[in-house]
Amino acid sequence: MAFIGIDLGGTKLAAAAFTADGALLSRESTPLADRTGAAVGALIVERILALSEKHTLDGAGVCVPGVYRASRGSVWAPNIPGWDDYPLREELRSAFGARTPLTIDSDRAACILGETWRGAAAGARDAIFLAVGTGIGAGILTDGRILRGRGDVAGAIGWLALDRPYVARYVIHGCFEDQASGPGLVRVTRDLLERDARYNGALRHPRPEDLDAGAVFAAYDRGDPVAVRVIDNAIELWGMASANLVSLFNPEIIVFGGGVFGPAAKLLDRVRAEARRWAQPIGIEQARFVTSALGGDAALYGAGRLAMMGRGAA
Amino acid sequence: MAFIGIDLGGTKLAAAAFTADGALLSRESTPLADRTGAAVGALIVERILALSEKHTLDGAGVCVPGVYRASRGSVWAPNIPGWDDYPLREELRSAFGARTPLTIDSDRAACILGETWRGAAAGARDAIFLAVGTGIGAGILTDGRILRGRGDVAGAIGWLALDRPYVARYVIHGCFEDQASGPGLVRVTRDLLERDARYNGALRHPRPEDLDAGAVFAAYDRGDPVAVRVIDNAIELWGMASANLVSLFNPEIIVFGGGVFGPAAKLLDRVRAEARRWAQPIGIEQARFVTSALGGDAALYGAGRLAMMGRGAA
Repeated sequence: MAFIGIDLGGTKLAAAAFTADGALLSRESTPLADRTGAAVGALIVERILALSEKHTLDGAGVCVPGVYRASRGSVWAPNIPGWDDYPLREELRSAFGARTPLTIDSDRAACILGETWRGAAAGARDAIFLAVGTGIGAGILTDGRILRGRGDVAGAIGWLALDRPYVARYVIHGCFEDQASGPGLVRVTRDLLERDARYNGALRHPRPEDLDAGAVFAAYDRGDPVAVRVIDNAIELWGMASANLVSLFNPEIIVFGGGVFGPAAKLLDRVRAEARRWAQPIGIEQARFVTSALGGDAALYGAGRLAMMGRGAA
Repeated sequence: MAFIGIDLGGTKLAAAAFTADGALLSRESTPLADRTGAAVGALIVERILALSEKHTLDGAGVCVPGVYRASRGSVWAPNIPGWDDYPLREELRSAFGARTPLTIDSDRAACILGETWRGAAAGARDAIFLAVGTGIGAGILTDGRILRGRGDVAGAIGWLALDRPYVARYVIHGCFEDQASGPGLVRVTRDLLERDARYNGALRHPRPEDLDAGAVFAAYDRGDPVAVRVIDNAIELWGMASANLVSLFNPEIIVFGGGVFGPAAKLLDRVRAEARRWAQPIGIEQARFVTSALGGDAALYGAGRLAMMGRGAA
């Protein structure tokens, strides 16, 4: 038996075959190159077919970089041209027939499925993957089931309201993401540089286009005073957001992943201490905070798990 | 067929019999008087027995003012002496036997079940009851199922972190509840009175012990400047909290209830406008904001619904 997982990203497609125990049988990666629209759908079909020549196909799971509209079987993926409402389920059904279990979901849903299957949250049924990178999103599992919401956009945690007053630029990506995503760290840095004319440290020197989250973390490690303020601000917000997850969901585990965790992984104890100040006190004792064990493979493993769930695994 | 619902409060027990369609067959209310511990459990059994003499008992549901620990069948109800860990499930089982469907849950879970069964959110499967009164709590339904969390304390929305910096008194009841519950409105009023020595309006005059949420709303209706600031602050926080529910859960409806909604019901349009600034923009378009249709009976109806769910109704 083999379950095939496809992790479609904005620039490449990762594919893998797994045993029912989650052991990796084989894996591969294909750049999307200049593919758009139906050519991306065709590539997914092609890679599933290629893997199923090597392994018996017992089911396939596909995760997508955007929103999977479960009722319609279509995908909105902002970084793939022509995927505003792409009929992926129909595409896969017509290639593989109705008898092959096929399951599609968002990449953030896949991340928490991967981590609860074979990663840092193995076996957990109330678990959250908090992805902090270019954007901020959450994959949420409640009593073993993916939280989808009315219109499949649940888990949009980048939009958390955490800090008053409201600032106009929150309209683009939400309050939490504005300050605490990778680009958010840069925005807060620029705000501080503008207000503090006396500062002449490392973060003043790069050309504006070279100022990125990596530069902020590097400056933080050297004790740069602006970087310290930026990271302290982010720790407070990551802590408040995690506290809100604890108070609302009472999860047993929160897995921190994405590009920022990453370099912020070493700050996790401080994030947890901050969360402890704000969160419901019984809930915080029950919630473990960990970093992703699967890293960039969390969604790929989750896609494999989606394949199994299509056969009724719970 | 009749389903019996019991809504245990801190001072009285409401009981009712319902048809499978949610029509009310009969209802009654009994003061707890000086009952504590096992005497409260005995009263629940007694009232179910009394109602089942009038109606065929097809199942009973009980909601409790606290936390129902589902794995152990016990209840923590802070306002009922001797109910730190009361074995209610065992108590009911020994009175009615294993064959009678018996279901227990928290009152906030019951409120959203009541509203989705026969109230303002009828038929909704992704719905939230936001109860704002002496405390603040939420009953959360995701895809038709009550959100419990790892330790049955999910929905502790009074603890939402919404406002920096952290203030020491948040440790008692959380940031959101500190400012935006009924007593929270009074706390913010007192803070403003302390800081504004020139104010000599109506909220200055009552003896401190007469200053309550009702007095704040009454002053607000007369345009009192301190009351306006207190209510504007609360509207912003109610809006931010609702926005966070929208962004995380993508619900189709949020039902506002509890003693404060109530007088705040007429402010719901402003709460929604505030939420729209902060929330994920697709999610907010899909979420209706309404006030409770069942008012003080929401939990009682929900207890009836719990009774049906014990028979496998979904």
